[in-house]
Amino acid sequence: MTKNILGLHLPTDPRWVDLASISLEDILTDHAYCEQKAAASCISLIQRYPSKERLVNELSPIVTEEWGHFRQVLAELQKRNLKLGKQRKDEYVNRLLGFQKKGGHEEDRLLDQLLTMALIEARSCERFKRLSEGLNDEYLCGFYRRFMESEAGHYHLFIELAEDYVYKEKVRKRWREWLEYEAHIIKNLELRGDRIH
Amino acid sequence: MTKNILGLHLPTDPRWVDLASISLEDILTDHAYCEQKAAASCISLIQRYPSKERLVNELSPIVTEEWGHFRQVLAELQKRNLKLGKQRKDEYVNRLLGFQKKGGHEEDRLLDQLLTMALIEARSCERFKRLSEGLNDEYLCGFYRRFMESEAGHYHLFIELAEDYVYKEKVRKRWREWLEYEAHIIKNLELRGDRIH
Repeated sequence: MTKNILGLHLPTDPRWVDLASISLEDILTDHAYCEQKAAASCISLIQRYPSKERLVNELSPIVTEEWGHFRQVLAELQKRNLKLGKQRKDEYVNRLLGFQKKGGHEEDRLLDQLLTMALIEARSCERFKRLSEGLNDEYLCGFYRRFMESEAGHYHLFIELAEDYVYKEKVRKRWREWLEYEAHIIKNLELRGDRIH
Repeated sequence: MTKNILGLHLPTDPRWVDLASISLEDILTDHAYCEQKAAASCISLIQRYPSKERLVNELSPIVTEEWGHFRQVLAELQKRNLKLGKQRKDEYVNRLLGFQKKGGHEEDRLLDQLLTMALIEARSCERFKRLSEGLNDEYLCGFYRRFMESEAGHYHLFIELAEDYVYKEKVRKRWREWLEYEAHIIKNLELRGDRIH
């Protein structure tokens, strides 16, 4: 029985890391784009909410950090003579985006945007932990352990920001709905070793 | 008679810097978003051309740098108790995008994308030079001199990348068309002190 990480309802199928370990070029490519999308999402939140000073000030350094991660993953690919491939359609993220409230109060939209980011960080953290424990490459295990720690930090930041802008009880209630929905997505997504999610 | 910078055909109206100096909050806000858009455009080029290794490797650190600039401008706003405002519609950039070839060969599209970036860097460099010479604030003059130097470097990089991927004579010919078109845009845009372009 695997202990659930950061409250996620459904642990990743243990076979995933074995599939990932035989698709290193694909998994590193996909990871690079995950970091890129994380940077782009923070940029887009800053654009949408420029008057929320704490959000702008907290997310600005995260963009630098996520982009730094992209560069680290790119360097790792090149060190191994592997190629950065094309970006794939991200079914996991697209399904999450489909659960976001689009209309209604700005507060509700902001909450969903922050919780989506928190959830992606949480699931990435869980997957990186799997990689750090299950890959047959000591260097990569350490590499993924560092990413895992970083994602856990970002997860906490997004939850904190949500609690800063929205009533705490409301955050908790909506977070439970998100966790349940995310488990449903993970359960129904094809198990593939060529992608982080 | 003002010497033209980086080949630009039409120098900026000298009254622009006087208008800018009385709209500091707006001009810094607009500048912040220009840096943000520069970072986002480099990210998008990397996404589009992941197999072009030189492009990916040269643009990756530029994203870090442009985002660092966004943070510097944000810090400058906050130091002065000014607010980061909303992003405006960017008429200058939109008109440039309208001149890009959308169909045809990938090489032509890439060339236009790189020359658009080069042109925005060139015009920004020219405007930052005006600010560095015309603002009544010694600190800000130095601030803009540093940005001016950085934009000039990026301009050269985009031209070099274009010449690396496309036959040089073709680059020169298309660049002349772009310079002419850009002068036409600048001539027809309203002169406003609340925006960089």
